[in-house]
Amino acid sequence: MVEENAPLTYKDAGVDIDGVTTALKSVGQMAASTHKDPRVLTGLGSFGALFRADFGDMREPVLVSSADGVGTKLLVARRVKRFDTVGADLVNHCINDILVMGAVPLFFMDYVAAGHFEPGMVEALVSGFADACREQGVALIGGETAEMPGLYGRGDFDLAGFIVGVLDRADALGPERVRPDDVLVGLPSTGLHTNGYSLAQKVFFEKAGLAPDATLPGLEGSVADALLAVHRCYLDVLRPLLKDPALHAMAHITGGGFTDNIPRVLPEGVGAVVDRDAWTVPPLFAHMARLGPVERDEMDRTFNMGVGMVLAVARPDADRIVAALEQAGAGPFVMGRLESGRRAVRYEGAPGL
Amino acid sequence: MVEENAPLTYKDAGVDIDGVTTALKSVGQMAASTHKDPRVLTGLGSFGALFRADFGDMREPVLVSSADGVGTKLLVARRVKRFDTVGADLVNHCINDILVMGAVPLFFMDYVAAGHFEPGMVEALVSGFADACREQGVALIGGETAEMPGLYGRGDFDLAGFIVGVLDRADALGPERVRPDDVLVGLPSTGLHTNGYSLAQKVFFEKAGLAPDATLPGLEGSVADALLAVHRCYLDVLRPLLKDPALHAMAHITGGGFTDNIPRVLPEGVGAVVDRDAWTVPPLFAHMARLGPVERDEMDRTFNMGVGMVLAVARPDADRIVAALEQAGAGPFVMGRLESGRRAVRYEGAPGL
Repeated sequence: MVEENAPLTYKDAGVDIDGVTTALKSVGQMAASTHKDPRVLTGLGSFGALFRADFGDMREPVLVSSADGVGTKLLVARRVKRFDTVGADLVNHCINDILVMGAVPLFFMDYVAAGHFEPGMVEALVSGFADACREQGVALIGGETAEMPGLYGRGDFDLAGFIVGVLDRADALGPERVRPDDVLVGLPSTGLHTNGYSLAQKVFFEKAGLAPDATLPGLEGSVADALLAVHRCYLDVLRPLLKDPALHAMAHITGGGFTDNIPRVLPEGVGAVVDRDAWTVPPLFAHMARLGPVERDEMDRTFNMGVGMVLAVARPDADRIVAALEQAGAGPFVMGRLESGRRAVRYEGAPGL
Repeated sequence: MVEENAPLTYKDAGVDIDGVTTALKSVGQMAASTHKDPRVLTGLGSFGALFRADFGDMREPVLVSSADGVGTKLLVARRVKRFDTVGADLVNHCINDILVMGAVPLFFMDYVAAGHFEPGMVEALVSGFADACREQGVALIGGETAEMPGLYGRGDFDLAGFIVGVLDRADALGPERVRPDDVLVGLPSTGLHTNGYSLAQKVFFEKAGLAPDATLPGLEGSVADALLAVHRCYLDVLRPLLKDPALHAMAHITGGGFTDNIPRVLPEGVGAVVDRDAWTVPPLFAHMARLGPVERDEMDRTFNMGVGMVLAVARPDADRIVAALEQAGAGPFVMGRLESGRRAVRYEGAPGL
């Protein structure tokens, strides 16, 4: 009876503040390693993170922000207990989202939540954020780590990321720059990036019954390796082109594929033509189409099909832009064109893979 | 056999893009209703949200950001299927976090994730964000809504929020302003705000075996009503004081209670004395202490004890500040003082409730 009425503590409720505090110390060190920008005024620990709003010689600076998650790619990470890359997926995804507006990133904040953190898990997750932030010159200036028993099932966790970047208003990319005779230039993805993972796992692990360490023709490493390939960041290859007047708009090919994402940067009265014969769809996608089976139209509205970024460029400058991207190692290719018509994607070429 | 090999779609994998798209339309309208600030340049739908970095006559503008979640308060919301207030909790929490640095909010972004969204759930959740943003004059400029079967259990969901505000560097509040003879002024909370919910639910629903609609002496409405009371936003009452030189620092009393949060704004060599006799702890907290039981020290390092915001103000100006807050309807009271000593909280007064 005495024990039954022993005083309750927060720890009894499944929350170990001290455990999280210990993890947060090493998180703080990782974050500090990304604070190369002198505009970062504080580290973590304060209630808010400070970043000096000094944008050099920009005439009309505009903040560009985006929030995102990793989606069910996290399930693949959990399946093979590899937690140190999904943070990089999220950082790169967020960078690409503001990059297509014409912005360069300033700072990033993360949200990490789970029912229970196994030892080392927070550190592994945050190392992914910190690695990508350091690599891309983005300050990881804050975040929230929450251990919430009952809200997440055993082993369940989630990540969200928030990015803020800046552009000079005159350099903003988008529909108002687009012309109906623009050329579409594609840049290769490294894999599925961060979308379509619910369907991909259904195909590989349920329908085809493959183990995560199974291999398939044309894939480097296992199926899990291919699925966990880090979302490519296009900042380094595209940054030199951001002030090029021939670059009109860019679409980051995420959830919804070409079908949903290309129209997001088109004005009314302009449609896109994607030539399915213009590039070889990587084996990872071809395997899914076959093993599902998944029809080509469904593939194109779900996956990036090996093309993570699509640029709309002025036709007279297309060769020059492609050459510049080629030189930067971006692997560009002309994959279609714009045309007058319905604000949607029309596919040409063979529907097979 | 034919059916077994019928083509798979993204919807077969449990993801209904069209369903989410429909919800997002009404989300877009709610967000647009918060775009009163002419610096907001776009609505949702673009890859990134645009906000003009025009900070008027600030000499050295500094962006202040914070990321947060609602924590296991969401479990209470789920228990009683009330989804339209937790978004406001998160907005207000985020506003308070940057307010204590001396910043006023500019814009907010949300992350909403679940395994499956029941019809109307996304709309209810986002209405909470939009209502609070509209009320506080903050632009809800973007966000991410993710339906992720398999990653979240049936009925599980989570929210995260991200805020950006601004202050003029000379007006930044914090440890460097604090003096060892400062007076601590408290402002009442509306309830638990957004922390301590794992322990609170363990006490009320497990240990005491109460139903969510149970009533207890001194509580307005049911236990669930008391637990879901919206996190108070202190922006309106504190904004007029942000440039007052007598206001040295503020601590938002969140996870870790007084014990962990007050020291976050103290310099080395300065400690805080909290006088437990200075205010009456609201019945909600007293019930928990009794029903747990939960000892007072544990209460003070877990809950806000009825005080959601603590100000450190210059002693000679304390009466003036309290009078101004009184006039603004903030309900201020002197709750302690600073002193030379260890950077920690020392409690005085009776440990009972």
